[in-house]
Amino acid sequence: MLLRIDHVGIACENLDEKIAYYEATFGVTVVSREVNEEQGVKEAMLHVADGEGGGSYIQLLEPLGPDTPVGKFLAKRGEGLHHIAYGVPDIEAAMERIGGSGVRLLDERPRHGAMGTSIAFLHPKDVGGVLTELVESPPRPS
Amino acid sequence: MLLRIDHVGIACENLDEKIAYYEATFGVTVVSREVNEEQGVKEAMLHVADGEGGGSYIQLLEPLGPDTPVGKFLAKRGEGLHHIAYGVPDIEAAMERIGGSGVRLLDERPRHGAMGTSIAFLHPKDVGGVLTELVESPPRPS
Repeated sequence: MLLRIDHVGIACENLDEKIAYYEATFGVTVVSREVNEEQGVKEAMLHVADGEGGGSYIQLLEPLGPDTPVGKFLAKRGEGLHHIAYGVPDIEAAMERIGGSGVRLLDERPRHGAMGTSIAFLHPKDVGGVLTELVESPPRPS
Repeated sequence: MLLRIDHVGIACENLDEKIAYYEATFGVTVVSREVNEEQGVKEAMLHVADGEGGGSYIQLLEPLGPDTPVGKFLAKRGEGLHHIAYGVPDIEAAMERIGGSGVRLLDERPRHGAMGTSIAFLHPKDVGGVLTELVESPPRPS
């Protein structure tokens, strides 16, 4: 069911500084920057690798304010790993299967993620404390 | 410099229970189980995907006792994301380059990781709160 580790989400105080750090230290490159008002973040995707199932990325997240989910995370835990996202071939099928196994879904239906993806989050309390995201990539241009 | 996201490390209270959960919920399979006395953990690698640079895994970690690094992590933060590991082609070269950029290395030289890998950890305070591991896979059988 899982195609790949799509990305790890990392919460940070200052997106521009953290992008510069990751580029200089790990040689990764920004491929997308977005402001997601719905999720209360500005974010950047840094490309790590490509695989059969699609790309893998580091996602850096800066909250748009203290009353956002990532803002509250930073206040409580400080900068660090925020969530893990797995690529799936069909997000609605994955949501149905996982929801049917008793894991609560934070999203009733898929919503828009970075780079044209469809995403849904699973309740971290039902995944051993890990905020877990499912990602379906957009169809590749043919 | 980074070949892939090699794995995400997830701290848990009960390895067997968490393996059963991940297998049932996400359809992933254990490919390796080890007790690492040096790191004070028993661990399992669950295969997610293969890519050009090698495999990607979920690593579940149960501490061997409360006075181990993962035991202290659980006491402080509870179950959840513990670290991220990136595959590199040459770990000594990567350590030299990253150490040279001012990031402190927690290991002076590579040590043994799961499945015959060579690994080294970077100081989380120098990587924006993220405990970061570098992994060089063993040579593939020819």
